[in-house]
Amino acid sequence: MATEQTRPTVNSDMGEGIGLHRFGNDPELMQIVDLANVACGFHAGDPDIMSETVASAAAHGVRVGAHPSLPDQWGFGRRPMVLTPEEVESLVRYQVGALTGFLARHRAELHHIKPHGSLYGMVARDPALMESVAAVARDYGVSVLGMAGTAHEAVCADRDVPFVAELYVDLNYNAQGGLIIERTPRSTDPRAAAERVTQALASGTVCAEDGTELPMRFDSVCVHSDAPGAPAVARAVREALESAPVR
Amino acid sequence: MATEQTRPTVNSDMGEGIGLHRFGNDPELMQIVDLANVACGFHAGDPDIMSETVASAAAHGVRVGAHPSLPDQWGFGRRPMVLTPEEVESLVRYQVGALTGFLARHRAELHHIKPHGSLYGMVARDPALMESVAAVARDYGVSVLGMAGTAHEAVCADRDVPFVAELYVDLNYNAQGGLIIERTPRSTDPRAAAERVTQALASGTVCAEDGTELPMRFDSVCVHSDAPGAPAVARAVREALESAPVR
Amino acid sequence: MATEQTRPTVNSDMGEGIGLHRFGNDPELMQIVDLANVACGFHAGDPDIMSETVASAAAHGVRVGAHPSLPDQWGFGRRPMVLTPEEVESLVRYQVGALTGFLARHRAELHHIKPHGSLYGMVARDPALMESVAAVARDYGVSVLGMAGTAHEAVCADRDVPFVAELYVDLNYNAQGGLIIERTPRSTDPRAAAERVTQALASGTVCAEDGTELPMRFDSVCVHSDAPGAPAVARAVREALESAPVR
Amino acid sequence: MATEQTRPTVNSDMGEGIGLHRFGNDPELMQIVDLANVACGFHAGDPDIMSETVASAAAHGVRVGAHPSLPDQWGFGRRPMVLTPEEVESLVRYQVGALTGFLARHRAELHHIKPHGSLYGMVARDPALMESVAAVARDYGVSVLGMAGTAHEAVCADRDVPFVAELYVDLNYNAQGGLIIERTPRSTDPRAAAERVTQALASGTVCAEDGTELPMRFDSVCVHSDAPGAPAVARAVREALESAPVR
Repeated sequence: MATEQTRPTVNSDMGEGIGLHRFGNDPELMQIVDLANVACGFHAGDPDIMSETVASAAAHGVRVGAHPSLPDQWGFGRRPMVLTPEEVESLVRYQVGALTGFLARHRAELHHIKPHGSLYGMVARDPALMESVAAVARDYGVSVLGMAGTAHEAVCADRDVPFVAELYVDLNYNAQGGLIIERTPRSTDPRAAAERVTQALASGTVCAEDGTELPMRFDSVCVHSDAPGAPAVARAVREALESAPVR
Repeated sequence: MATEQTRPTVNSDMGEGIGLHRFGNDPELMQIVDLANVACGFHAGDPDIMSETVASAAAHGVRVGAHPSLPDQWGFGRRPMVLTPEEVESLVRYQVGALTGFLARHRAELHHIKPHGSLYGMVARDPALMESVAAVARDYGVSVLGMAGTAHEAVCADRDVPFVAELYVDLNYNAQGGLIIERTPRSTDPRAAAERVTQALASGTVCAEDGTELPMRFDSVCVHSDAPGAPAVARAVREALESAPVR
Repeated sequence: MATEQTRPTVNSDMGEGIGLHRFGNDPELMQIVDLANVACGFHAGDPDIMSETVASAAAHGVRVGAHPSLPDQWGFGRRPMVLTPEEVESLVRYQVGALTGFLARHRAELHHIKPHGSLYGMVARDPALMESVAAVARDYGVSVLGMAGTAHEAVCADRDVPFVAELYVDLNYNAQGGLIIERTPRSTDPRAAAERVTQALASGTVCAEDGTELPMRFDSVCVHSDAPGAPAVARAVREALESAPVR
Repeated sequence: MATEQTRPTVNSDMGEGIGLHRFGNDPELMQIVDLANVACGFHAGDPDIMSETVASAAAHGVRVGAHPSLPDQWGFGRRPMVLTPEEVESLVRYQVGALTGFLARHRAELHHIKPHGSLYGMVARDPALMESVAAVARDYGVSVLGMAGTAHEAVCADRDVPFVAELYVDLNYNAQGGLIIERTPRSTDPRAAAERVTQALASGTVCAEDGTELPMRFDSVCVHSDAPGAPAVARAVREALESAPVR
């Protein structure tokens, strides 16, 4: 967790290829980010890609988190499903555990858990489902990446699970502070991303799509890896973070 | 590993249901066996069933091993595939790791790895593939269950991985000591199973299908859970083990 | 479609095994039912089981319908997902088409489409999703099995797709006429099933769980194959249908 | 089937994306090729992508064939499996049928079947497995694309199934006339592809990797869609075909 002395980190969802398919940005992003949220096979990723991604993270000193998803590869984990808390816990345990199988090869530890896509949204809205994620995080002694002001944060606080608040620079916020998720990613202007970071650092706010100014606390900035131009966005974000006065 | 003072254990493949399907013998077997080889989702098993199976094992004091498979649910992991050692290692790491996600809930440790079906046979015959299994076992500090006299044993010896030799009572051996695996399990006579154990304990041999007497060292007896009457077989095996003079 | 002169048919969901798993009632049910709704691989069923099920239906003169599902084997297709009409249409086309691959071997024609589980409920409530099912049925010139008074019926009427109204005997109705679906099936008393059929034939009503008398038009009675005792229920239903005065 | 008066066609494997992933060449290739071999979900492709691919083929007047595979998405269908003829037939029926579900929307007919990857090689070498493919092709009254001089051709001849011999321009042949398949595709020089076509048309031969001159009959030229630069290769091939004297 970022304390007052630390700069926010940059995190990115990685290893989201399947079989021969790759989004193509991972090798470059791995040189820029602090945290890799590694796909665990349910929305993307497969055992070979997980092996490759964890090895690359280890080689670059990037800390590895699990990026568990609903079991929905065709929908890239972006189609909500109705699940019980027990089912969510089983899905998360399975995927988080699977990732640690690759960390074991490098004697590396799991660093965090960040739910993917619709699962991220479902557990943001439903504390009972978020309890399942928090239970797994607590068993592993790791933090959860999520959105401030949602069940992500509230349940982590309740359960003494370290919480890392995220700022998004390649998705828009609606007036209620929710993320507007599109199935197919759009390209993001690196300058706009940097400006959002700079504004958020300076004033603690971001602009929603309709112009509403939203309060925004954050410890880490997320850059998606499946969008065209992701490395340029990540570099712009990193520069904005580094040129800002230390909080 | 069995030392000279210990009796052989009884192990069983468990958690081999999918969705609503169950073979039905697990609750009874869990009261009889020492070791549960838990299916990890590739030939059978799913996150909910793994959760249920590990909880049951923990409640009964049964030690839990991973039972990783080729990715082939329709063929129940019993159709050989051509894979590289790297692919085998990734498949095994993924599944073994996934299982540990459920062990983490019970603060329990992984006890062993036993490859399933065609993967078991492939790594018995091919030392390069077996190296992949041994590498994972070594990272976790656990033993491998397998067949004496095959690459299972030889590679484990090379890599300082504890090896547990198995005796099968519900499959036939051919004259070369290989197992005759059928896709659909047959029912086994509990008395014949007990006799095979008693003979193996007394004389260190089993009879192959054609009557050949095969030398047989073993530390654990495997009882499959997918065959009708499996609990009766397991009980007969346990009684045969307990009524034999301690080795 | 049942006309006034015909007796209602008996239909059953079949081929809902996976790999080595079977619910076990199909061979007996195939001798009793008129219509088999064959699982198409998404909630259950696999290519080998589909082949076996269609061959058995052909041998028994049972008419074959497709039983497409959400892609969710672990949840047996009983966990709602948020899908677009286009996605529902693609899922249904894929599965219906897959089934016709097995019908082609027997020079048999597809007879109907009956959505499974949560998909059945989703398209009952949402006409836009039901349009997708109706579009596929119309392309194949087949009927849709569903619930009278829902979008199943309304959209079929709009699109000139023959509609076959179902009566359920192994699920309860709520006071609004909706089905109460449980993930794990319960056993049904064959006499209660027969009585529901007899009452529905005589008075055109069934009793909801709370005693409410619901109007009930139907052309076919569904008996689930995954419940214990399903063949006895199917036989009781068939006898009730045959002993009633022809409508 | 090409008769003496017709020019060879150009065929390409298409729709080999998964979820959000695409190889990216399909829109351009669809303007160049005569035949699209559409992935059916087992090595690649999903219901939405199949829908999109068949619609695009229909819009461009490209004839659609099925491109069924072993069930192995992670290995892109390029890892051999041991299967029975019955299993191969079920896999092929399922996938071919699934594709026809999308053709039904456009009132289009299936044009051919071309097995993918390792399945292509397995049925080239094993006539018993090829019988399964031929049986499906015969039920649909369509041709099979394959390699002259293998079980592809021999079994089709035996079973009166039209056979279309392929020339490959982006894979090398070994001295025995077999294809050298690599898991990850290489880029092909369009001029080399065109020259191979021109030579094959003029002299009925191609050069194997070691320089051996191989006899080569063909009715269609295959251009893979997963390689970088595939459209340029396809265009070069088409020009070579069109500038050659009509056979």
